[in-house]
Amino acid sequence: MINEAARAGEVWRTRPAAERAEVLDRVADALLVAEEELWPVARDETALPEARLRGEITRSAVQFRLFADVLRDGGHVEAIIDHADASATPPKPDVRRMFQPVPGVVGVFAASNFPFAFSVAGGDVASALAAGCAVVVKAHPGHPALSRRVAEVIKSALPDPDLLGLVEGLEAGRELVRHPLVSAVGFTGSLRGGKAIQALINERPDPIPFYGELGSVNPVVVLPSALADPVRLAEGFAASLTLGVGQFCTNPGLLFVPDDAELLKAITAAVAATTGGAMLTPAIREGFETGASSLDGRLTELARGLAGPIEGAVAPRVYTADLTTFSMGLPELAEECFGPSAIVVTYQEISDLPEVLRNLPGSLTATVHSADPVEAAPLVPDLARLAGRVIWNGWPTGVAVTWAMHHGGPWPASTTPMHTSVGATAIRRWQTPVAYQDLPDALLPAELREDNPLGIPRRVDGVVSVA
Amino acid sequence: MINEAARAGEVWRTRPAAERAEVLDRVADALLVAEEELWPVARDETALPEARLRGEITRSAVQFRLFADVLRDGGHVEAIIDHADASATPPKPDVRRMFQPVPGVVGVFAASNFPFAFSVAGGDVASALAAGCAVVVKAHPGHPALSRRVAEVIKSALPDPDLLGLVEGLEAGRELVRHPLVSAVGFTGSLRGGKAIQALINERPDPIPFYGELGSVNPVVVLPSALADPVRLAEGFAASLTLGVGQFCTNPGLLFVPDDAELLKAITAAVAATTGGAMLTPAIREGFETGASSLDGRLTELARGLAGPIEGAVAPRVYTADLTTFSMGLPELAEECFGPSAIVVTYQEISDLPEVLRNLPGSLTATVHSADPVEAAPLVPDLARLAGRVIWNGWPTGVAVTWAMHHGGPWPASTTPMHTSVGATAIRRWQTPVAYQDLPDALLPAELREDNPLGIPRRVDGVVSVA
Repeated sequence: MINEAARAGEVWRTRPAAERAEVLDRVADALLVAEEELWPVARDETALPEARLRGEITRSAVQFRLFADVLRDGGHVEAIIDHADASATPPKPDVRRMFQPVPGVVGVFAASNFPFAFSVAGGDVASALAAGCAVVVKAHPGHPALSRRVAEVIKSALPDPDLLGLVEGLEAGRELVRHPLVSAVGFTGSLRGGKAIQALINERPDPIPFYGELGSVNPVVVLPSALADPVRLAEGFAASLTLGVGQFCTNPGLLFVPDDAELLKAITAAVAATTGGAMLTPAIREGFETGASSLDGRLTELARGLAGPIEGAVAPRVYTADLTTFSMGLPELAEECFGPSAIVVTYQEISDLPEVLRNLPGSLTATVHSADPVEAAPLVPDLARLAGRVIWNGWPTGVAVTWAMHHGGPWPASTTPMHTSVGATAIRRWQTPVAYQDLPDALLPAELREDNPLGIPRRVDGVVSVA
Repeated sequence: MINEAARAGEVWRTRPAAERAEVLDRVADALLVAEEELWPVARDETALPEARLRGEITRSAVQFRLFADVLRDGGHVEAIIDHADASATPPKPDVRRMFQPVPGVVGVFAASNFPFAFSVAGGDVASALAAGCAVVVKAHPGHPALSRRVAEVIKSALPDPDLLGLVEGLEAGRELVRHPLVSAVGFTGSLRGGKAIQALINERPDPIPFYGELGSVNPVVVLPSALADPVRLAEGFAASLTLGVGQFCTNPGLLFVPDDAELLKAITAAVAATTGGAMLTPAIREGFETGASSLDGRLTELARGLAGPIEGAVAPRVYTADLTTFSMGLPELAEECFGPSAIVVTYQEISDLPEVLRNLPGSLTATVHSADPVEAAPLVPDLARLAGRVIWNGWPTGVAVTWAMHHGGPWPASTTPMHTSVGATAIRRWQTPVAYQDLPDALLPAELREDNPLGIPRRVDGVVSVA
């Protein structure tokens, strides 16, 4: 399978970016055409509701289309041209640099919690195909039938079906990471899973890049000026906490609030009014129960929602602690508990926050609620150090698929914090630069030819130029 | 030392790019001012000649100045702005992304063969300081007095001398790699040294990036159309092979040539006319003798230069083999032998070359000599796969310090082939992105404010715009 993918990739990497863009658009079309067939398969395997699954198919299609736009723009190759300078000491040659697809095959480990958008039809696959790479996906065991069917749908839109491979099972995943033709690995999942893959990669003779997005606690800081409407704040928190039964890597697991009785009362009421639901898999449910229960003896339960009528459903749970108790419980209290659970930490003074923020592990997001930029200003650098995305007066769930999005963060949120798994720059993970020195124009890739036939943005002699 | 550097870095990272640029220019000035004092210190420790050392001080200054230009341009932060779109489904927030310096301290292992330009005053240090990071350098034991003196010169130009630390000795190097405040490591040196550092990093709880540039064999392919002037070709090869007593990571260690008696005769004569010299350290000399001697029984010696009058000097040596013999001796025959040694491999047909090129390990450079782009065209993709820089009718030694330069290559040339240790994009290694979602303009870094006060190139709503 990996050998076949590598062979197909040899052709794919030579195709012009515009042609790859057309293929990505066709994949998006194929996913949307298959929507009626696909969402019930996903529902049966994940317990996720119809509206969410339909929305996620759209998100998958949008991701393929974004990378089609990226290819048409051409900025992803980061073309840089330095003309020769014979008068320099020593004389400077003509040097032209651009990104090329990484050699071989990209391995992708699918996530459980987004059966479309972070799985076989996910951003890792879309960005790797866009870069010009063949991909082999290790299916998530939480939705095997869906994985197979989605792979078929995507293959039907590819010029060579071998460009996308699908493997199943732990051992096949290990083989994928070890295979000499696999040159980069993407992963979305747990810290434990990510560490296991990193350990396998560390055994390889060649240190290939591992782009793991491992989730996080996503701290939210509520500043005193944000207390004007405590009910709205509490309801926003409860909604973000319980969205998708809390099964998002951007789930708000830590809320720092002023020690304000009205706000705590509002949070209690808002969380009590929520309904949880069934979790994706029995293992995830067990992990949630174990993680949440470990807080029972240590912290005070502030509020509990309803489990709802579905068998095996879990109830949202929120604990509380003051800043001192919480700080003394670090780092354990800042470990992610995947599911609808959070800790509300009460503080007395804003000036008490920086120290605890600096002691938190890296997160994908950090949020501040405030009505006053001057009040929030001193905290922003700490939040930007703590997380890959800083959010103002919003909630961390919901990761827009755009050019500027960064979905990554300091360890343990990401294994390579420089890279993102969502947004246009996700394509960079599957590229590597080549510089061409003094090559005749006829031998250069179109992106680097003197007359810029593709009209892409380039840096020429140190200056960015737009066609 | 590392703690002090981290503290100094906390301030440095907050300084505007323009201010950091001024500091880099001052470092360049200070190095040039100290030239008369520094080059004799280097000569006494490295046996390198005056002209070379003076040139290298200039190169170091040029590197600091290039990164000052990079900072003034502002493109290194890769500012991307997506305005909010309330009409989208779901509504899109305002997202603005840019690179920030990595947290903590950058660790740099200096190389032996460039006592200025890849050592304490090297590109790793210049690019990391430019990014906004504090640096601690592990001095190379080949030039300890110079390392200390250069560190003093650089510190004298820094706003806080603690921004640059210097440690010496193997154990201090290990501590540097293991230290929790070190967030990225740069290295230029041997494959063995690089593997040792990678192993230490693999033991860390957090998988920090390791940017190792480990050298390579730098294959050169001579095509039949290039045989018009065999003497010029042979002299170019011999000069590149013996430059700096062959102690360059871009030294041409493999030359594929048509089985042409005249060319082989010219190479023999050109190499016989060379003089080697003293090597940088006794260990490097021993490594060269062992490596070259291991070929004695296996391959035919084609030519040998003179050692020259200096005690302990080595003589350049060139071996030869036909393509079949060479191919059967892979991968051992493609291992780098650091010093003035090469293998000239004779081939019969151009069509025999792609297979052997695909079996070579990754290199920093791959060169083709040809008078006919049509003849060379089929090989260019293989060369671009094999190496990070493809050179036309030139020689691999000499790495221009420019915007487009890429000095890196597939493993084992680099541990992270996506990155370069020379050229403007080397700064990226010490940066990590942050996205700001819906932040008020007043809380955004200047690079992301709506009115673009710094006038930097940015991508706005998907389109690259130049101020």
